[in-house]
Amino acid sequence: MTETLVQSGSKSALIGFDHPFCVIGERINPTGRKILNEELERGDFSRVQADALAQVAAGATILDINSGAVFSNKMAEDVRYADNNFVEPTLMRELILKVQEVTDVPLCIDSSVPGALEAGLEVAQGRPLLNSVTGEEERLEAVLPLVKKYNVPVVAISNDDTGISEDPDVRFAVAKRIVERAADHGIPAHDIVVDPLVMPIGAMGTAGQQVFTLVRRLRSELGVNTTCGASNISFGLPNRHGINNAFLPMAMAAGMTSAIMNPVALPVSAKKIAEKKAAVLAAGIILPEDMDDEAFVQLFGMGSTHARPGKEMEAIRAANFLTNHDAGGAAWIKFNKTPGSDDSGGGRGRRGGRRRRG
Amino acid sequence: MTETLVQSGSKSALIGFDHPFCVIGERINPTGRKILNEELERGDFSRVQADALAQVAAGATILDINSGAVFSNKMAEDVRYADNNFVEPTLMRELILKVQEVTDVPLCIDSSVPGALEAGLEVAQGRPLLNSVTGEEERLEAVLPLVKKYNVPVVAISNDDTGISEDPDVRFAVAKRIVERAADHGIPAHDIVVDPLVMPIGAMGTAGQQVFTLVRRLRSELGVNTTCGASNISFGLPNRHGINNAFLPMAMAAGMTSAIMNPVALPVSAKKIAEKKAAVLAAGIILPEDMDDEAFVQLFGMGSTHARPGKEMEAIRAANFLTNHDAGGAAWIKFNKTPGSDDSGGGRGRRGGRRRRG
Repeated sequence: MTETLVQSGSKSALIGFDHPFCVIGERINPTGRKILNEELERGDFSRVQADALAQVAAGATILDINSGAVFSNKMAEDVRYADNNFVEPTLMRELILKVQEVTDVPLCIDSSVPGALEAGLEVAQGRPLLNSVTGEEERLEAVLPLVKKYNVPVVAISNDDTGISEDPDVRFAVAKRIVERAADHGIPAHDIVVDPLVMPIGAMGTAGQQVFTLVRRLRSELGVNTTCGASNISFGLPNRHGINNAFLPMAMAAGMTSAIMNPVALPVSAKKIAEKKAAVLAAGIILPEDMDDEAFVQLFGMGSTHARPGKEMEAIRAANFLTNHDAGGAAWIKFNKTPGSDDSGGGRGRRGGRRRRG
Repeated sequence: MTETLVQSGSKSALIGFDHPFCVIGERINPTGRKILNEELERGDFSRVQADALAQVAAGATILDINSGAVFSNKMAEDVRYADNNFVEPTLMRELILKVQEVTDVPLCIDSSVPGALEAGLEVAQGRPLLNSVTGEEERLEAVLPLVKKYNVPVVAISNDDTGISEDPDVRFAVAKRIVERAADHGIPAHDIVVDPLVMPIGAMGTAGQQVFTLVRRLRSELGVNTTCGASNISFGLPNRHGINNAFLPMAMAAGMTSAIMNPVALPVSAKKIAEKKAAVLAAGIILPEDMDDEAFVQLFGMGSTHARPGKEMEAIRAANFLTNHDAGGAAWIKFNKTPGSDDSGGGRGRRGGRRRRG
C-alpha cells in the first residue's frame, strides 16, 4: 500500500494507508501571526523553538516550516525586503536550523518561493517533505526538478493557472495532471501527497462531501496520499473546534492520511484569566493572595496556562482507533491517562444489556 | 431516496439519506438503571416523563421506550412477575401513555417480548417504529405479522439463530434475509431500519471499519436506512465520549441515518459537586455562604446542574453540516448560541492566508 517516507537525520515519519494519521504541525508560520512576524524580523527565534517543542509534545510527527514573513521595518530601509524572493530563502534556512537545534522530527519546507524551497532543501537533514507544487505551469517547472534533484516527497495542491475550481472533478483532474507531470520527471506517485483543497463549509454546503469524495478518488484511482489545511473547513463559523473535531474523523474514514493543522490547544490567555477573576470576585468569592494563575485556571476549569494537545488531537486519536490503527487501544488509553481528561462513561452498552435478557 | 416515516399523533420524523441524522433517545430503558427500575415497580413514572422531556430538549426526534424491567419485589409475592411476557405488555402500555402525556414526538417501541410490542402498538399514536425483529426464525414469525398488521416501520438487528457473527459478511447476509422475508409479508425495504450491530472497538480492532463498510453496503445494495446502539463502540474504554464523538461522524459519513443513543449530558452529580467544593476549600478559596450549586458549578467550569445536550449531539450537528444537511449552517449557529458553548477560533485558514500572498 502507498507509503510516503519523510525523514529527519534520525527519525522517520510514514504517511500511508496502513499507518496512523500523520499530523503535520502548522504553527511555525508568520502568516497572520503578527508577534511572531516581528520577532523573526528582529532575528528572535525563541517562539519558533517553543512552538516546535509544543507541537511535537502534542503529537505532531512532522513540522511545517513556513517562511512567508513580511519585514516592514527592514523594507523601509532596504527596498529588496519588499520581495519575498529576497526575504524567504535566508529566513527559511534560519528557521530550519533553529528548529533542528531543538527537535529531530522530520520537516515540511513550506513556501511559495522556489528559492526558499531550495534553500530549505540545502539545510534540512534527511528527507523533508516539500510544500508545495500546484498545477500552475510555472510552478510545475520550478518545483518538480527540485523534487527530483533532492529525491524528496512533495505536497501537490489541486489548483492551476485558472485558479481554484469549485468543481471537485476539476480539482481531481488537476491533481491527476500533477501526478502525470511528476511521473515524466521520474517522481513516483507515492512521493506525492495531494491536497484536494478544503473550502469553508459555511460558504459552500457541499465542501465536506467534496473533500470526502475527492479523498476516496485520489486514493483509489491515483493511489496517492492526501493532506489538507484542516481548519479551513470551519472558517468564519462559531465553535470552530466542534466542526474540526467532526471533520477530521470523517476525512480519515474517507481515507485522508495526513493534515497540516494545529495540534496544540493554546494556553488560556492573560485576558481570559483576568476576565474570569473579575467574574469570580463579583460573585463574592475570595481567592487566597498567593494563588498563582495555573492553580486558578485549573480550579476554575479553564484548562491550563501551558500548551496542551488540542481537542482535534483527541478526535484524531479516536479515529485512528476506529480505523484499526490502534488495535487494543494502547495509544488511546495512554493518551487519556493525562490529567484532566474526561474519564466518564458514555452509555451503558444498551444492546448488549438487552440481549442478555432476551 | 429511501425514507422511513415515523409518526406520533401530530409529528413526523423522517429517517433517510436526504435528511439530517435521526437521534433516537435511549434513556427510557430500565436495563441497568436500578433507580428507574425500582420507580417503575412502584408505579412512579415521574423520571420517565422528565427523561422524555430532557431528551427532546437535547435534540432527540424519536424516543425509544424499553419495557425490560425486572420486578423483584413483586416477583417474591407473585411468581408470574418472573416472566417478562407477563410484566412487559402492561408496563409498555403504561410507559407509552405516560410519555404521550408530556410530549408528542414519535416513539420507538422496544422489547424482546412480542406481547409488549403489540401492547405498545395498540396505544401508541401515529406510526411508531417497532424495535425489533432479528433473523431468528421465531422472532421473524412473531414480529413481521405485527409490522404488516399495524403498517409500521421496524428495526432489524442482524443476528440470527446462530447468534451474532463476528464476520460482517454474515451480518450483511442476515440483514438481507430479513429484508427478503419482510418483502414476503409485503413490507417494503424503506420500512426496515437495519442495525448492523456495533462491537466494542476495545475488544475488536476492526469493529469501526466493519460498521462503516456494512452501512455503505446496506445503503447501496439493500437501499435501507440504518441505526445502531452507538455507545457500544466505546464499551470498557476510558473517555468514552471521545470515542463516541469520532465514531458518530464517521458512521454518518459512511451513510448511517440514525442512532439509538443518549442525547443528554447528565447534570453534574451531587458527589462531584461535593468533591470539587472540598478541593476548592482546601485551596484556601472562600465561597459566599449563599452560593447555590448551579452558580458554583458554572463558575468552576463543571457544566450545569441541569441536563444539557451531550458532546455527541455537537458531533452529530457538526457532521450534519459536513454532510450538507445544514447548508449555510443556520442550525449549527443556533446550536452554538447556547451559553457555555466553545466559541473560540480553530486555526487561521492557513492555506487561504498563504495563497493571498502567492
